[in-house]
Amino acid sequence: MAEVKLLETVPIEPIMIAQEAIHVPHKNDPPRLDIDHITPLVGDGRYNVKRTIGDVVRVECDILIEGHEAVGAAVLWRPADSEAWRRVPMSVIVNDRWHGEFQLNRTGQFYYCIEAWRDEVASFQHDLAKKIAAGQKVDLEVAEGDLLLERVETAAKSGQDSGAATILHRVRQRLKTVPSAARQQFYCSTEFHQALQAADIRSFVSRSNIIPVWADRYAARFSSWYELFPRSQSESPTRHGTFADVEKRLPALQAMGFDTLYFPPIHPIGRVNRKGKNNSLVANSDDPGSPYAIGAEEGGHDALHPELGTLEDFKKLQDAAHRHGMELALDFALQCAPDHPWLKSHPEWFSWRPDGTIRYAENPPKKYEDIVNFDFYAEAAIPGLWHALRDVVLFWCEQGIRAFRVDNPHTKPFPFWAWLIPEIQSKYPDALFLAEAFTRPKTMYHLAEIGFSQSYTYFTWRHTKPELEEYLVELTEEAPRDFFRPHFFVNTPDINPYFLQTSGRPGFLIRAALACTLSGLWGMYNGFELCEATPIPGKEEYLDSEKYQLRHWDDKAPGNIIAEISQLNRLRRENPALHSHLGLRFHRASHDQIIYYSKSTPTMDNVLLVAVNLDPINSHVADIEIPLWLWKLPDTGSLEATDLINARRFIWAGKNQRIELSPQGSPYAIWRIRPARKQ
Amino acid sequence: MAEVKLLETVPIEPIMIAQEAIHVPHKNDPPRLDIDHITPLVGDGRYNVKRTIGDVVRVECDILIEGHEAVGAAVLWRPADSEAWRRVPMSVIVNDRWHGEFQLNRTGQFYYCIEAWRDEVASFQHDLAKKIAAGQKVDLEVAEGDLLLERVETAAKSGQDSGAATILHRVRQRLKTVPSAARQQFYCSTEFHQALQAADIRSFVSRSNIIPVWADRYAARFSSWYELFPRSQSESPTRHGTFADVEKRLPALQAMGFDTLYFPPIHPIGRVNRKGKNNSLVANSDDPGSPYAIGAEEGGHDALHPELGTLEDFKKLQDAAHRHGMELALDFALQCAPDHPWLKSHPEWFSWRPDGTIRYAENPPKKYEDIVNFDFYAEAAIPGLWHALRDVVLFWCEQGIRAFRVDNPHTKPFPFWAWLIPEIQSKYPDALFLAEAFTRPKTMYHLAEIGFSQSYTYFTWRHTKPELEEYLVELTEEAPRDFFRPHFFVNTPDINPYFLQTSGRPGFLIRAALACTLSGLWGMYNGFELCEATPIPGKEEYLDSEKYQLRHWDDKAPGNIIAEISQLNRLRRENPALHSHLGLRFHRASHDQIIYYSKSTPTMDNVLLVAVNLDPINSHVADIEIPLWLWKLPDTGSLEATDLINARRFIWAGKNQRIELSPQGSPYAIWRIRPARKQ
Repeated sequence: MAEVKLLETVPIEPIMIAQEAIHVPHKNDPPRLDIDHITPLVGDGRYNVKRTIGDVVRVECDILIEGHEAVGAAVLWRPADSEAWRRVPMSVIVNDRWHGEFQLNRTGQFYYCIEAWRDEVASFQHDLAKKIAAGQKVDLEVAEGDLLLERVETAAKSGQDSGAATILHRVRQRLKTVPSAARQQFYCSTEFHQALQAADIRSFVSRSNIIPVWADRYAARFSSWYELFPRSQSESPTRHGTFADVEKRLPALQAMGFDTLYFPPIHPIGRVNRKGKNNSLVANSDDPGSPYAIGAEEGGHDALHPELGTLEDFKKLQDAAHRHGMELALDFALQCAPDHPWLKSHPEWFSWRPDGTIRYAENPPKKYEDIVNFDFYAEAAIPGLWHALRDVVLFWCEQGIRAFRVDNPHTKPFPFWAWLIPEIQSKYPDALFLAEAFTRPKTMYHLAEIGFSQSYTYFTWRHTKPELEEYLVELTEEAPRDFFRPHFFVNTPDINPYFLQTSGRPGFLIRAALACTLSGLWGMYNGFELCEATPIPGKEEYLDSEKYQLRHWDDKAPGNIIAEISQLNRLRRENPALHSHLGLRFHRASHDQIIYYSKSTPTMDNVLLVAVNLDPINSHVADIEIPLWLWKLPDTGSLEATDLINARRFIWAGKNQRIELSPQGSPYAIWRIRPARKQ
Repeated sequence: MAEVKLLETVPIEPIMIAQEAIHVPHKNDPPRLDIDHITPLVGDGRYNVKRTIGDVVRVECDILIEGHEAVGAAVLWRPADSEAWRRVPMSVIVNDRWHGEFQLNRTGQFYYCIEAWRDEVASFQHDLAKKIAAGQKVDLEVAEGDLLLERVETAAKSGQDSGAATILHRVRQRLKTVPSAARQQFYCSTEFHQALQAADIRSFVSRSNIIPVWADRYAARFSSWYELFPRSQSESPTRHGTFADVEKRLPALQAMGFDTLYFPPIHPIGRVNRKGKNNSLVANSDDPGSPYAIGAEEGGHDALHPELGTLEDFKKLQDAAHRHGMELALDFALQCAPDHPWLKSHPEWFSWRPDGTIRYAENPPKKYEDIVNFDFYAEAAIPGLWHALRDVVLFWCEQGIRAFRVDNPHTKPFPFWAWLIPEIQSKYPDALFLAEAFTRPKTMYHLAEIGFSQSYTYFTWRHTKPELEEYLVELTEEAPRDFFRPHFFVNTPDINPYFLQTSGRPGFLIRAALACTLSGLWGMYNGFELCEATPIPGKEEYLDSEKYQLRHWDDKAPGNIIAEISQLNRLRRENPALHSHLGLRFHRASHDQIIYYSKSTPTMDNVLLVAVNLDPINSHVADIEIPLWLWKLPDTGSLEATDLINARRFIWAGKNQRIELSPQGSPYAIWRIRPARKQ
């Protein structure tokens, strides 16, 4: 307060703006009709709203005009390869909020905007109807209707709009036969409104900014990934696996219900500073090294590790995968082993130290001696390096690959991704990019804004009911819902979650059920189905990690959960409500270890209830509320439910129900529900 | 799902974008540093952020860069009459959120934006310090420091920055004397960072859009309005009051603590279709008519009603008001009586009917025969009418008026206000506009966005605790907080609230206390202090409304609440926490008729607690929680409290307290609180 007094008592010159800076009045600038608070919208329209083919885009906005004037509005939309806007009429929801919708019938770039205008005819009709209802004399209003009609016909004629002029002329001719007392009814009619619509007398047209929408293929929101190291797929733990060995596993993976088979890098592995078993600094001569140390004398990012096979072998595997209903996803890791060919051919793309040595990757005080990063901003790196990296992606696209898991994208410049992804998708609109960024939340979201199709998440570290609910509400109800597609991996070669290290088999079932039902995208890394979780003691890492050595997996091992995963993936395919993380609602369950939610499609033609016991040790009982209100049913209403785990059908009568979930039986339950038919 | 399958099985051409539409890569476009989610911001920067002189603007934003690069950022701000940006450094709050602040030291137009850049030196120092801490060898890093210093000095020299070059040269000379082992410490030092700052080696500078801020004078957020009809201010109910009569009331109004005296229109009143008492269609010859029927042969909007006095009398009243610490506020009602001079001189500004008669104001089926509206969009109305209306406001500004209550602004075009208000404020930055819009919520907010300084609200219709809390949270915590200043009128000539019609005296005290403490702006209309509430039966209107006849008010009437209002206004002046609706927090009170909240200044140097019993009939008791947490005190802490109503000071020990409020005593309590000093 002292400061304010000081400022008020000292004479201070106000800020004067030069008079010529003021605009002359203009009747529609700023527009008479204000269009604001448009949804969906990402980054105020700087980034794409993300959708998939077939999606109906529901557009909403506020439209304001002074007084009681009537308003008309439309959504205008178009694919990027057409200049012609399609128009969809909008209608009012409530309190100046409008909506309209259009369907994305192709993949690729779309645009939409909103147009609003003063509907002079509707205003006129609205007032006239009120006066007639109040029994007032409306002779003058009818005369005004005549004048309006005449004015519009004249305008149509002078505007060469012969179609509209003809319609209006016909209307006026017909009106001459209408008895004078009935004319007031005519002017209230839809016929009158439509006749004038034909002439397009929209005035004070206001148009919003243009908002971009990207339509991905369906797999962008619904797919089930399986990750494996091809080199570990031979029958013997000592023989290096090949693409042919992977081929043999396809029937089993298909039977488990996976549709995307993802490999860590399959390129030649550097020999300089190669890491040994368990990330040791010195490798034995027979250690295969980390596949993330990309590049050796055999080639770089567009070559294949010779021990895996040739490009021909790779394409044979790809064809076989397609025959098994699966696509391949590759790892795009932007880094080099010190013996990657580019260090010699393009030393200008890297960072060198004062003593002439190469700068290794590091995250002080950690050092990664087998890896060298690119210097994206080196003098000679733009466009050379950026083009070369793009060409790597294009090369694999040309081989038929359309899904790329990108390693650590958050340590590469945003402008690089904002350029690279559209550059690829302009040629391959069906290319998908999954961001493997485990970093601070805003950076994860920003990568999705600038183009990544899917994103790794914090799911792996969310275990309690409040943690899961809070995170999923953020993903499904807040801003990210329009641009961030969460890919729920239950484990990765880098993450052996603490929870699974001690949970035993029930914990694996719990995490699989959560991932499979909470998100349209889920993934697991080889070994999860065998409940493998042996850690480096005290660390969130696997002992004897496949990143540094060959492993052998026995998918007949006792206690595996292959049957359960197969069932979950089948339920996912059969129930469209599970094809997206959206459509999620949490419901009340009385026990804090039992999480309980519904998933539904936008049209409510597929609605599931899911309950999961988060405790891998103890059985728990919870009182739950059946969401009868979803169909506006009373608390005494009934739902027809199908228990999808054991295929039992029954009737749930009344809102309050009780369930028990046992980790030793099935720690989760999934029901398909719908209103019970009247008996 | 059926639709999706259809789309996926029919071969559909994806949308291909022409290759030339793709950008060539650019290292900083889009910017390497992403600046987003800036606050404060109104309408994405299309409208002014609203503040008052002396306010500290706290700016926040997210700033992102890839990886672990260090970032620097500053708020740049300037008044509109200077091209030179002032810079204020920003600092991190948490999780990539930054903040900085600047003070508005004048009234008028300001701008700010945010600049962020890569801080190469901090990145270097950060990594170096970590390596030293880990005991690693840093010879190469020290050599890199040498090279960095040399590179920057060379750049400073070639950039003719002799100041920086000198500093850097001096640093390098001094470094030669530093023993080699100590150099690594030097490169971690603030001295090194500052030396390089002098040379401004900020790289990848990214700048946000420019955001406008308008600084009003202090009365825009803190003032107490009293509304009266000058014509009712004579000592006799039969004699028409004059400006001289109003002058006699100034001491009493000053004593009551008001600082703004607002008159409904004081212009000549039309005689054509003049309304009689209680809005009757036919007026007697001695009926004065509604002052909102502006204009007669004596003049229009820039003339004074002859019976009130001359312009000289008006200016004499204005001078007297200033001497009594009050300013005058006029009514700006954009409408005419049918005999307003403009109907003859500018028939082209109005709407005429097919039979040659003028179109009266109406809101079908209601008609207002004594009023004619302007046709803002008539062919010849722009710029003529718009300029004429602006000139009316300029005329009154020239007479010294700086506060305008605008009648029904929501029925006039938005582009008109968006042009008029800046047009006036460019000449008179201290001019204030109060929007009297009672309409749908989004329109009320939009009027504030496009320029109105203050706004009437729904306060008059919010009576219960949940209603009040919900509305005030919307006003003080959501988007409107940055552009909408709520003016809480307890009554107006148009609104005789139902609540007051039956509440008796305690109801008037309740409403006054709520308005006085919830908003920096409150107002009452003559008669409220006398607890006048006689309605037209069943309506929210006053019987024998002053809008249509002379009234006489006896401010000695028994049961008046003049003493209480005087005290409330004094407490408002003395406590800066009451100078704004912001700084409001609702706290828990166990009774649903007792509303309980704190108000505080941003610096917490003035903190009040307020409790109001909303029931005008019964006493109620409530358990309340004292907000010890505001000062991070434990639940067992103590506050020193001063009861401002009866000037008693005491100690509140412990979080849980109990209060009783009696409508027959004082239905409200106000305490000033602060942490108790240690004994």
